[in-house]
Amino acid sequence: MEHYPEGKRVVIVGGGFGGLAVARLLKGLPTEVTLVDRQNHHCFQPLLYQVATAVISPADIAWPIRGILRGQHNMRILMAAVTGVDTTERLVHTDSVTLPYDYLVLATGSTHYYFGHDNWAPYAPGLKDIEDATAIRGRMLLAFEHAELTFDTAKQRALLTFVIIGGGPTGVEMSGAIAEVALQTLPQEFCTIDPRSARIILIEAGPRILPSFPEHLSEYAKKTLEKMGVEVRTSSPVTDVNAKGVVVGGERIEAGTIIWAAGVIASPAAEWVGAPHDKAGRVQVNPDLSVPDHPEIFAIGDTAAVSYGDGLQVPGIAPAAKQMGAYVGKLIAGDIRGTPRPGPFVYHHQGDLATIGRHAALVKLNLDHFTLTGFIGWLFWSVAHIYFLIGIRNRVVVALNWLWQFFTLQRGARIIALPEHVQSAKKHADVT
Amino acid sequence: MEHYPEGKRVVIVGGGFGGLAVARLLKGLPTEVTLVDRQNHHCFQPLLYQVATAVISPADIAWPIRGILRGQHNMRILMAAVTGVDTTERLVHTDSVTLPYDYLVLATGSTHYYFGHDNWAPYAPGLKDIEDATAIRGRMLLAFEHAELTFDTAKQRALLTFVIIGGGPTGVEMSGAIAEVALQTLPQEFCTIDPRSARIILIEAGPRILPSFPEHLSEYAKKTLEKMGVEVRTSSPVTDVNAKGVVVGGERIEAGTIIWAAGVIASPAAEWVGAPHDKAGRVQVNPDLSVPDHPEIFAIGDTAAVSYGDGLQVPGIAPAAKQMGAYVGKLIAGDIRGTPRPGPFVYHHQGDLATIGRHAALVKLNLDHFTLTGFIGWLFWSVAHIYFLIGIRNRVVVALNWLWQFFTLQRGARIIALPEHVQSAKKHADVT
Repeated sequence: MEHYPEGKRVVIVGGGFGGLAVARLLKGLPTEVTLVDRQNHHCFQPLLYQVATAVISPADIAWPIRGILRGQHNMRILMAAVTGVDTTERLVHTDSVTLPYDYLVLATGSTHYYFGHDNWAPYAPGLKDIEDATAIRGRMLLAFEHAELTFDTAKQRALLTFVIIGGGPTGVEMSGAIAEVALQTLPQEFCTIDPRSARIILIEAGPRILPSFPEHLSEYAKKTLEKMGVEVRTSSPVTDVNAKGVVVGGERIEAGTIIWAAGVIASPAAEWVGAPHDKAGRVQVNPDLSVPDHPEIFAIGDTAAVSYGDGLQVPGIAPAAKQMGAYVGKLIAGDIRGTPRPGPFVYHHQGDLATIGRHAALVKLNLDHFTLTGFIGWLFWSVAHIYFLIGIRNRVVVALNWLWQFFTLQRGARIIALPEHVQSAKKHADVT
Repeated sequence: MEHYPEGKRVVIVGGGFGGLAVARLLKGLPTEVTLVDRQNHHCFQPLLYQVATAVISPADIAWPIRGILRGQHNMRILMAAVTGVDTTERLVHTDSVTLPYDYLVLATGSTHYYFGHDNWAPYAPGLKDIEDATAIRGRMLLAFEHAELTFDTAKQRALLTFVIIGGGPTGVEMSGAIAEVALQTLPQEFCTIDPRSARIILIEAGPRILPSFPEHLSEYAKKTLEKMGVEVRTSSPVTDVNAKGVVVGGERIEAGTIIWAAGVIASPAAEWVGAPHDKAGRVQVNPDLSVPDHPEIFAIGDTAAVSYGDGLQVPGIAPAAKQMGAYVGKLIAGDIRGTPRPGPFVYHHQGDLATIGRHAALVKLNLDHFTLTGFIGWLFWSVAHIYFLIGIRNRVVVALNWLWQFFTLQRGARIIALPEHVQSAKKHADVT
């Protein structure tokens, strides 16, 4: 790559929607841009639940960052994990290299938060990256395999109980998709068990699922899930999670598969730069998304705490990250070109989407309370997601997989590939 | 499933080409058929190298066994690992269940063999299943990522050296595919390194690569690989493999990625049933593929040592396993129907196929020495493999991926998803 001894060096940490948006807006500028990510790929998180439920393959929603930004000649992409930031010397430390910066953009996203119960994590994995998704896919499919290997009905019932904790879009999508696997994909393929006897329980601590939607849509989602055989429990905080199952409202539910879709917490970016943060770990940024006392450091996406409208919190969704990334990208480009900094960042909420199984979805757009439900909603949701997918090829493959599954009820990616030690944690039994 | 108190119980161990062929021929018979496999999926091994080199996704060549055999109502499919066989009580022991049998079919395939140097295994993984393929894919892609993170040219050179041990079809296919990744897919995506400087070395102990082909085709393959930038070393037995690289002919070659495509050994099936076996562990079966002294036990595919023609060994390839499976399936079906057992198994060798990169392949069919090479060979190879793929959907997706890669030189599945401990084994360096 060309070097610019006089030029400014921009370091972007994170190759998600926010980080990529910043990188794109610095294309062609006389500046060295370095993008650092722990992974070699950008992951389209909104569709992770479909990988976790064996509809599509990881490669359909994960795209090498180098491929996305190839041809952007002032870019350097490094696969490394950031370990800290020296704001005085302006250095980013990673597990392998040290990167000097003039501008630093923190776009490191968020991870699962167990509300102080980190010991729950091994029993209730969350869904944030490709490894999470393939691990959950493996656990879910193994539960049916292991149930088929035993005649102990209590053990079978536990193995065929799936608990999803958290009634947000991810929890709703996961419970709907698991219901389809059990009710539509697997029947007729087992002898000892009937997959349709599987219990799928969606647990929400708050009074209703999908709280970000209007009440009537939450109600619609609940009814739709119940029609699909999902038990929806609201106002039910989980008090314990362990190897045997969960405890909710004093009741112990034995479950072979538990999925965490409840809390998220921002990456430790705020600590790296010693910035003020809210209790979810998000940096309390200035109106221009810069970090207090550091006009050269910016936090965007899930890493930043930003409010809009009458004190609403900007949600941790892809469009928000893209908008912040585009704003910061323009701002830095303007600095380099010597133009004055723009006014404060303004978030435009385009709407909320959530899908429930194979042909129902919820859509709430921001034009005077326009909403869609059911099949029309599902079509809108599908088109929107395929449109946002990176790479035309992925659009084609994902569309192909959806059509395949829609018409055949089959799943394209039913592969169990877990580390040995997980697989061999197998219930012993006797089939004769 | 229906039970047949009077019926015979058939247990098939292994869901590969051979095991599936047996299962299919027992469809509709008044007998309980149980198929046991360690995995939940059948893997189309001939295309594993394309998963290992990021062309296609695991799900494109792996298909749930339950899905393949769904609708075969006398089938029970169990995901379990066989631990031994009691030939007196006629019981198959697994890590979870115990299965009584009247007929037992051993179709457990083969695994990598390091010629007594099992300590080489961690440094030179082989390519036998989906986990192997994704692990090799991750190592190969990580080598480029790690090289990009250092300015130490010696370290870069080692990281960008890829050694493939074994000049059979798998070794030829892997070295050609890695050459394409380095020369066609990755250039322009790196700053510190030039992926085209990668060294790809194919090492064969024997006098020529592809020994199962006529000499002129071995020569053609060697020339084609060399045109692609692959160093081909024949008559070069490897004397050591370790964390730093390999030793061949007294020369030490530092290599970040080593792939084992040399030896295979049969699964321990022969030991389970105390049967005579050759030094590759294959059961020395009777002419009807039954195990000596056990007319109720059969060994097929890579598990069996069978000769044909003038003392040739039946090769460990899919068509051979299918033929043996069909023969044993018909034989058992005949026993159950009360018809006499057929004459000895006769193997029909249809030919040999090997592909070299994106548009060259070798085809040798058994009709008076008909051979194809180059692009025509590649077309033949592609059609043959797509045809043999299980499941129309997979044919479509694989064809789509091949076209995509053929026209764009891109790779569809460039995802690094390795266990943490492997990823963090990262060379430390400084980029400034």
